[in-house]
Amino acid sequence: MIGGKAWNWLAAEPLFLRGLHLDLSPASLVLLLQMFSVGVAAMIPLGAGAERWKLGASCASTILLAGWTYPLFAHWVWSEGWLSQLGVMYGLGLGFVDSGGASTIQIMGGLSALSIAWTLGPRRGKYSSDGGPAAIPAHNVVLVLAGCLLAWVGWLGLNSAGAILFNHREASAVVLIAINTTLSAGAAGLAAAIVTRLRFGRPDASLVSNGWMAGLVASSAASPFLKPPTAILAGAVAGALVVLSIELLEFRFTIDDPGGAISVHAIAGFWGLLSVALLSDAGAGSSGQWLAQFIGIATLIGFILPLTHGLNWLIDRVYPHRVDAEGEWQGMDLCELGAGAYPEFVVHSDEFSQL
Amino acid sequence: MIGGKAWNWLAAEPLFLRGLHLDLSPASLVLLLQMFSVGVAAMIPLGAGAERWKLGASCASTILLAGWTYPLFAHWVWSEGWLSQLGVMYGLGLGFVDSGGASTIQIMGGLSALSIAWTLGPRRGKYSSDGGPAAIPAHNVVLVLAGCLLAWVGWLGLNSAGAILFNHREASAVVLIAINTTLSAGAAGLAAAIVTRLRFGRPDASLVSNGWMAGLVASSAASPFLKPPTAILAGAVAGALVVLSIELLEFRFTIDDPGGAISVHAIAGFWGLLSVALLSDAGAGSSGQWLAQFIGIATLIGFILPLTHGLNWLIDRVYPHRVDAEGEWQGMDLCELGAGAYPEFVVHSDEFSQL
Amino acid sequence: MIGGKAWNWLAAEPLFLRGLHLDLSPASLVLLLQMFSVGVAAMIPLGAGAERWKLGASCASTILLAGWTYPLFAHWVWSEGWLSQLGVMYGLGLGFVDSGGASTIQIMGGLSALSIAWTLGPRRGKYSSDGGPAAIPAHNVVLVLAGCLLAWVGWLGLNSAGAILFNHREASAVVLIAINTTLSAGAAGLAAAIVTRLRFGRPDASLVSNGWMAGLVASSAASPFLKPPTAILAGAVAGALVVLSIELLEFRFTIDDPGGAISVHAIAGFWGLLSVALLSDAGAGSSGQWLAQFIGIATLIGFILPLTHGLNWLIDRVYPHRVDAEGEWQGMDLCELGAGAYPEFVVHSDEFSQL
Repeated sequence: MIGGKAWNWLAAEPLFLRGLHLDLSPASLVLLLQMFSVGVAAMIPLGAGAERWKLGASCASTILLAGWTYPLFAHWVWSEGWLSQLGVMYGLGLGFVDSGGASTIQIMGGLSALSIAWTLGPRRGKYSSDGGPAAIPAHNVVLVLAGCLLAWVGWLGLNSAGAILFNHREASAVVLIAINTTLSAGAAGLAAAIVTRLRFGRPDASLVSNGWMAGLVASSAASPFLKPPTAILAGAVAGALVVLSIELLEFRFTIDDPGGAISVHAIAGFWGLLSVALLSDAGAGSSGQWLAQFIGIATLIGFILPLTHGLNWLIDRVYPHRVDAEGEWQGMDLCELGAGAYPEFVVHSDEFSQL
Repeated sequence: MIGGKAWNWLAAEPLFLRGLHLDLSPASLVLLLQMFSVGVAAMIPLGAGAERWKLGASCASTILLAGWTYPLFAHWVWSEGWLSQLGVMYGLGLGFVDSGGASTIQIMGGLSALSIAWTLGPRRGKYSSDGGPAAIPAHNVVLVLAGCLLAWVGWLGLNSAGAILFNHREASAVVLIAINTTLSAGAAGLAAAIVTRLRFGRPDASLVSNGWMAGLVASSAASPFLKPPTAILAGAVAGALVVLSIELLEFRFTIDDPGGAISVHAIAGFWGLLSVALLSDAGAGSSGQWLAQFIGIATLIGFILPLTHGLNWLIDRVYPHRVDAEGEWQGMDLCELGAGAYPEFVVHSDEFSQL
Repeated sequence: MIGGKAWNWLAAEPLFLRGLHLDLSPASLVLLLQMFSVGVAAMIPLGAGAERWKLGASCASTILLAGWTYPLFAHWVWSEGWLSQLGVMYGLGLGFVDSGGASTIQIMGGLSALSIAWTLGPRRGKYSSDGGPAAIPAHNVVLVLAGCLLAWVGWLGLNSAGAILFNHREASAVVLIAINTTLSAGAAGLAAAIVTRLRFGRPDASLVSNGWMAGLVASSAASPFLKPPTAILAGAVAGALVVLSIELLEFRFTIDDPGGAISVHAIAGFWGLLSVALLSDAGAGSSGQWLAQFIGIATLIGFILPLTHGLNWLIDRVYPHRVDAEGEWQGMDLCELGAGAYPEFVVHSDEFSQL
């Protein structure tokens, strides 16, 4: 199964598409879904590399993620690959279960984000000489919240499509999935609000949006297998976890992840994978399901993460990931894309032209 | 029917969901729709309480709205409650008709907004000592317009879902509903542009967006029962009405409603309820339908508004709704949510840190 | 066929709607689609007239476009009009093919934008006395990119609806159309990034978004008739073309088109029409198809453009299109709509009040 011809079909798209008649067949629909899924995965590391990642290097890294590591692992999980067959072949529950892409999309993206944050190092000015991190607030939190709300809407489609195409659910499961996804995200946002209120004295708006994103990520693994109360529980844990994880990475491990991509996508994704065994109808109480989920997690940490980091390290030898100090001071919008993204600094444009 | 077990089922969600198999059954779909509908209703009062409403008090008020008053009234209107049965039981036309939530979602939200605006009082600086209101323009009218455009798209789904689930329309009615909803919103925006042009010399962009929102609200009551010309008429009246109502509330009644929530959602909603009897196929010319609509409106004003205001008054005793002067000067984004929402004021952050 | 009663049905909407039962019939669905299509077409000229077009004149121009020229040409292309019948009547391939509105929506809008840019002349300060154009960057490129991303999502629906309603495709063609549209847009964005990188040293963010918009426009003509590799080719050409066209219009022809509307909608639209004959299954290698497409293009340039420009010229006699210098200095948001759209200039509002 591994090493066969099929598992790199997405990377070899033009070849493969020549033989595929595109209609409402599952293979066509999978192709369509994967086109957008890999796009979601590829955007995640951008959150961790914000404000210091060269455009060219980010394109190279994205090409390797979207063209090689993502299709490889997605095949293992979704397209009758060995992880999905753990149940049939070795009696481990239903095999490795990830209905809507908590591992393939989210954790793949989150681990890539971790690799990029490691490679790049923190932004200048993030950590002072005594090691304490400075808060660098998002430029426009209203747009952050609006984007995360739109993601919520899209997630209803993502989880539903995954369940139908990869877990052979009936179309009628969409109602359960939409309710579970929404409850999980809502509970996660609430949990993040409560945790940030307890720790910082007031709920933090961007951490709350990270919270509900974490609830969405966690729901992706098990949404068709949960009941509403367990979906609420899965979301609440994800929302609390992501706040603590963001703090831990920033303060303890001094990893500078401006968008919280590692915590939101990788950490909440791992929790989602565990929730399949812990909370879902599919796996509750089955040690085989626990084992299958752990094998998947071990593959992600033991194989995908080193592979991804090795590829990013290779790119760094040829074409360094990090912009120079001058470019970082200008900002990526001006230095790499030639257009100021921050209208309120237009008035200061004279300062830039004096450089 | 009233006082039975069913009418508080949404508030008792976890209990009820235990027995419900979530599939494409009407009960499941109603649950899914109601989850989002109650969310829409709960966001409306935030527009009236903007810039001075404490986060904790707004959560308490939202919980009572979403957990008690909304499900109570929605049951009466939509789930075979007494208002919907006025036709069958007492021969009053089709009973109280509200297809897409003009009363349950919009007026409930708008009356709650009225109660909050009363309770909070105007923002500091809104009314000078001689009583004249100052214009406090929206921070970013581009985002206001973009949000209202997205609402337009969502409304096509809301009105369609309501008509199918609560008025037992065929799925093919979606085309008529989408056309009516769009014509109503377009006519309302145009009417608001004309009225503001006549009164202020130029069309006011944010009042025009309030105008088309009012057209959407009004269309919710009767969209499956209108024809395109009557939909245009219903919208045009709503758009003109909302501009006059906003002015009246601000100048005559000195009620400070920053987002126009009361006028857009309550006033246009009442007009929508009347349009069922006045303009629709369902009720035109039937005195029974007029009576049914008036009974619904009387229930909203005579029962729901006092109930809502009483609950908000109770909250105010325990945990005052209004932030202190210091917090109001900072703004809710910094004081209550810990993140500045207005990037262009970043340059002034020194002023805040000196406090 | 021409001059018959049917071809102005959209302009005579209230009359026509009286006889039409609105359900899932093709006529009803066409009406619904056309309501939104004509809205898209009508918004295109606003991009070319930005910052100097009077609101009243733009409304007059839009009414003539939406009420007369658009329905006229759309009838010829889509509703069994003479352009669509070129194949059946004169054996020219499949007749003039435009599946998703590259000509009816995009080129109509783009030619109207050209007429408006001609009529208005460049913005003050755009061209210095020695003729060199100054760059006037978009106020907020983040919103530009977000809007163009939302357009991408909507385009999947637009191309699919057009193919089903006007080219009698099965619903299953939606998958092929969605994949082709996405590949075309992606390839176009990439091509625009490469071309701007080669010419200006760095990819230009707003030109890249114009690039993928051009890919979407080009895909509209032929999306159900392409295969994925030809869709990529069609998009890549569109993306490169639009960058060169924007430069040519700005530097050579000194036409000031702030939003790139002429290049994105008209130029890429013409390329899309040609791609039907050059690349698609429908027309490849057929000289009849080439002729049909050229007849359509000739009609657009030789009849629709003069008609549109004549109408705009007439409006200009009665009610000049261009705002006066004072209004242009204030900006359209303050002068025409009475609400500042640029929050970061709020701090300068004193300057305006001193005028």
